[in-house]
This record gives sequence, structure tokens and C-alpha cells, in this order.
Amino acid sequence: MKLIIDAMSGDNAPEAIVSGCVMAAREFGQEYILVGKEDVIRDLLKKENAEDLPISIHPAADVIDMHDDPATAVRRKKDSSMSAALYLLRDGGGDAVISAGNTGALLSGATLVDKRIKGIRRAALPTALPCKGGRVLLLDSGANAECTPEYLLQFAYMGSFYMEKVMGVKNPRVGLVNNGAEDTKGDTLRKETYQMLQQAAAEGRINFVGNVEGSDVPKGACDVAVADGFTGNVMLKTVEGVASFLMGELKNIFLQNTRTKFAYLLLKPAMGGLKKLLSASEVGGAPFLGISKPVFKAHGSSDARAIRSAVKQAMAYVDADVVGEIERNIDHMTL
Amino acid sequence: MKLIIDAMSGDNAPEAIVSGCVMAAREFGQEYILVGKEDVIRDLLKKENAEDLPISIHPAADVIDMHDDPATAVRRKKDSSMSAALYLLRDGGGDAVISAGNTGALLSGATLVDKRIKGIRRAALPTALPCKGGRVLLLDSGANAECTPEYLLQFAYMGSFYMEKVMGVKNPRVGLVNNGAEDTKGDTLRKETYQMLQQAAAEGRINFVGNVEGSDVPKGACDVAVADGFTGNVMLKTVEGVASFLMGELKNIFLQNTRTKFAYLLLKPAMGGLKKLLSASEVGGAPFLGISKPVFKAHGSSDARAIRSAVKQAMAYVDADVVGEIERNIDHMTL
Repeated sequence: MKLIIDAMSGDNAPEAIVSGCVMAAREFGQEYILVGKEDVIRDLLKKENAEDLPISIHPAADVIDMHDDPATAVRRKKDSSMSAALYLLRDGGGDAVISAGNTGALLSGATLVDKRIKGIRRAALPTALPCKGGRVLLLDSGANAECTPEYLLQFAYMGSFYMEKVMGVKNPRVGLVNNGAEDTKGDTLRKETYQMLQQAAAEGRINFVGNVEGSDVPKGACDVAVADGFTGNVMLKTVEGVASFLMGELKNIFLQNTRTKFAYLLLKPAMGGLKKLLSASEVGGAPFLGISKPVFKAHGSSDARAIRSAVKQAMAYVDADVVGEIERNIDHMTL
Repeated sequence: MKLIIDAMSGDNAPEAIVSGCVMAAREFGQEYILVGKEDVIRDLLKKENAEDLPISIHPAADVIDMHDDPATAVRRKKDSSMSAALYLLRDGGGDAVISAGNTGALLSGATLVDKRIKGIRRAALPTALPCKGGRVLLLDSGANAECTPEYLLQFAYMGSFYMEKVMGVKNPRVGLVNNGAEDTKGDTLRKETYQMLQQAAAEGRINFVGNVEGSDVPKGACDVAVADGFTGNVMLKTVEGVASFLMGELKNIFLQNTRTKFAYLLLKPAMGGLKKLLSASEVGGAPFLGISKPVFKAHGSSDARAIRSAVKQAMAYVDADVVGEIERNIDHMTL
């Protein structure tokens, strides 16, 4: 497999990206193409003593940053690392793109260059949130602020395929994020989507478990939580915000006095699991589901370890052929 | 002041309600009317040795429960404790109603019987969420799933008045819950609302601090977080769900072995503040903002202490004359 990595995008680019790529190459093998400023990348690879690893460089002089308009950035900055990576993927130069750059620009670019799967109305960005017992896939977690019931139906299918094929969850439970558990809850969008999901469940195509409330998702009530991108984004950010707030309060408690500091030392070994659960680096990133080629979005704040995890996830995504699975089922996913 | 309390509604009614009323009467003075089954309430008051307190009983034979249709319950069950309380308020029999019953039924009933303030399009249910540094008022937190920009503008004003007059926050910072911090973020509803809030800020009427993301709210980035009732409900439930999930994980860590159990004993005294912050009993409840008389919704799961807190909040709401403040400003709050 050949992985195309946008070396110049993300808060910690290019150092963390190159370093993460080196980690991945050492751990997983495979071939890698780092896209970006050739001399900069070459120097970094030298520093990492990574010159004999199967990592090549595809030169791109420009970088898309946070000030570029996401809708037009990839088209206008054709020589940016992100654009070059997406064109390289389109032209068969590799099997997947991984980028920690601007989400909106990457999505628009992937849609423009690599195209959506035929019949898919909108690509969705899923996020694997920590929950009781593991992870729940929330989608759309921010790509599409305004949605139709058909988009949400497609998100349900795509999330279900992803959880089954990439995350190994058998018969994943799909929940519709709503403002109450009863069938009749929600606005027009939710009510219409509910009917469609129920129909898909009746035909045995997805395992729809009904409406889920915001409180049900962290409890692990479903494996796939379906939401429009506005609600999904608010939910995702709220999870992050509350977790960070509570961990901060806890830290204040630990620092309160000698007793609590001592207690922290006793707890520290046992706290590792919780920290790991809340850490974005463990998941690394997620693909834009619905794009006809694997385009993987890594966190903007990715460190080397997060890039390594994103590579791992991207490899699993390619191997599982989720794109093919969506294509084979597209007739059931459109109105 | 005379407080009308629906004694029969809520998960722990009537015991916890009567007991909370007795706590309030002992602590705050004032007069109370418990609405519900006379003999049951009388027995409970006797048990509490509360017969000389200024608590009277207004008889109502029926109860609205979770199986009643919220939209029609108050109209159809006229002799329910909730309906009787709302009519008593309308007819001047007291200064505020407090009920731990079905939120939808209470809102529909309050709208039907006690009416909205003239010019207010929809009453909102605010929730005081824990955040860094104190509490943030989220509204609407569930009463109105589908909203217009005008509703959200009104929520912003009403929330602002509530935080200033009842919670004592000077010049409260109003944020619009959105899927990004930039001005241009959001769906049509958010974009239109943003313009209106900015206009209100330019006129010096509210302290609008711009868009807030889900992660900004727990960080205490604003005092009033404005959302449609769908998003607000998902956000509120997510906060509850994540808090409960993390506290559960923490409990598991504490129970892991002898060392961690000992650590917990050392931490316990310092954990009180966090527990209090996350406890619904400390806030008690919230008024339906926009109803022309004070109608207070206490948590369905209220224990006696939560009812006592709800009484305290309701008294502050009456004293602050938020209803009058809304009426005096209504011209700026309508299109």
C-alpha cells in the first residue's frame, strides 16, 4: 500500500507529520509519499535517520492555511501540499491521502478532485467519541451544517459500514441523535429521517435502535450516532469541552494540598486508561465517508503519535474497502 | 410572597415535594400552597411536624403523568394538581408556580392558562449548566425544537435579563451556540440570528460576544448561551451524559485496588465542590422565560433539597421582576 501524506498542513507541520510518518513506516512498513517543500522534508527525514525507509517526497511549494477560503483553496492553490496530494490520489499515485489541514478545504478539495461516490449526496466526517465500553462513531460531526433526511440516511449506512468493516463491530447499533427517546420526538428533519431509518431496519439493512439523546451517546447506547453536521459539531465540541473542563477541575483538586497531591500519586497508574480514552492521538483521524477515494482527516493539532494512528486507521480503511461497500449498496441509500 | 407548589408531580412526588416545601418554609419563611390530594398531603405534613408552618392545601384529585399528551394534558385534566396550580396562579391566588412534572405539559399549560407576555413568540426553558467559574445559562434547552431568528433574539434578551437580575451577573456575555467561532459560521438560522444579535449589541442592549462552540460553553466563554431547543437539548443532555460517564469512570478507578481506595479517602473532602457543581439539586430548576407569570420547572427527579432550591430560585425570580423587565423591553425584542 502507498500512503500519501500532506506534510505541510496542521498546527505542528511539518515536523510532527514527518516524524509521525517515520513512526508509521518503522511500525507498519508500507510505502509513503510526503507531499510538500522538498528541502524541508528532506532535512527532517535526515534528522530522523529515516533515509533508508520507503518514504519518497512529492514536491509542492505552497501551503493552504487557516486564512484561505475553504471552498476555493484547493482549486486556487494548485501547488499547495493538500491540492497536490489530492490530485496524486486521483491519478493513482497512491491508495489514500492523510492530511491534518483545514477540514473545510480538505473536504471541498476531496469533493472537487476525487469526487463523491455516485449517488452519495454529501460526504460526512465521522468522529470516534469515547463512551462507556469503547467508542461511538458520531457522524456527520461538522462537514454539513444543513442536511436533508436522505443525507442522514446515507450517514447511517456509511457509519454502519465503517464501524463493521474498520472497527470490527458486528451489526453496529445505529441511533438517531434527537431531543428525546420517543418515536414522535424531534423537528421535521428528525421525524422524516426516523421513518426512513425504520424502513431500512425493517428490510434488515441496518440495525436501527431508535432515537438517542445526548446523554445516551456517552453511555454507549449505540455504535453509530447519526446527526446533521451542525448538531454533530456542537455535540462533539461539547464532549471535548466538558471532558477538558472536568479533567481541569480534577487537576485543581489534585493540586489542592499535600494530601490530595499524595492521593494523585497513588491514582496516577490507574488514570492512564481514562487519559488514553480521552486522547485524540489514540484515534488519529477519520475518513470523509462518501468520497470515492480514501481521504483521511487527521486532527489539526496532531502530534507525531496522532499521525501514526491516522496512518494505521487509513490503512484499515483502505483494506476494508468501505468505498466498495458503499458503492455496492448505493441503490438502497438513495431515494 | 405566596408560592404555589404542585405536590403531586415528579418522580419522587408527593413525599419529596412536601418535604422540600417544609424545608423551604422553615428556611425562607413566606406562604405556601401545596396543590394535590388533600388527605395525602395532610398526612405528610403531619409526619414532618409541619402543621404550624404557613402551608395550606389546595385540593386537586387528579395527576398528570408521563403517559398524558403534553399538548393537551392541562386542558383535559382540569382537576390535576398541575392544572389547578396554573389556574390558581392566573387568578391571583399566589405569586409563582413550582412543578416537577412533565416539562411539555407544564409549558403548554402555562402558555394556555397563564399566557405568554405580549410580543413574546415562544417561551424558553433555560438551564444553568456548570462551567469553569460558575454557571452558564443555556436557552432554549428543550422547549422549542424549531426556531426562527426572532425566537433566538428573544431568548438572548430574556436570558440576559435573567442572569443579570436573578443571578447577579453584571452585563452578562451572550454567545450564540454555533459550529465555529467565525462570524460566517452556521446554517441560515444562525447567520440571520448573528446579524440581529450584533445589531442589538450595537444599540447597547445586550453584550453579544459572538459565536460560541460547544467547547467554549464549559470553558465559561459566555454567561448566556443561545440555542434553538433542539440543539440546546442535545447539548444539555450531552453535558449530563459526559459528566456522568466521566464520574463513573473515575469511580471505577477509585475502586480498582487498595491504593486507589485509599487515594479516594484522601481526596473525598476536596471532591465536594465538584460534586456540588455537577448536582442538579443545587440549582433546583428554572422558570419558563416569556410566560406572563412566574412558572418554575423543577427537575423531574427532584429530591426535597432540589425542591427547596427551586423555591429559592423562584422567589428570586419573582423579586427580580424579570417578567416586568421583559415587558418594558418588548419593543426591541420583536421584528
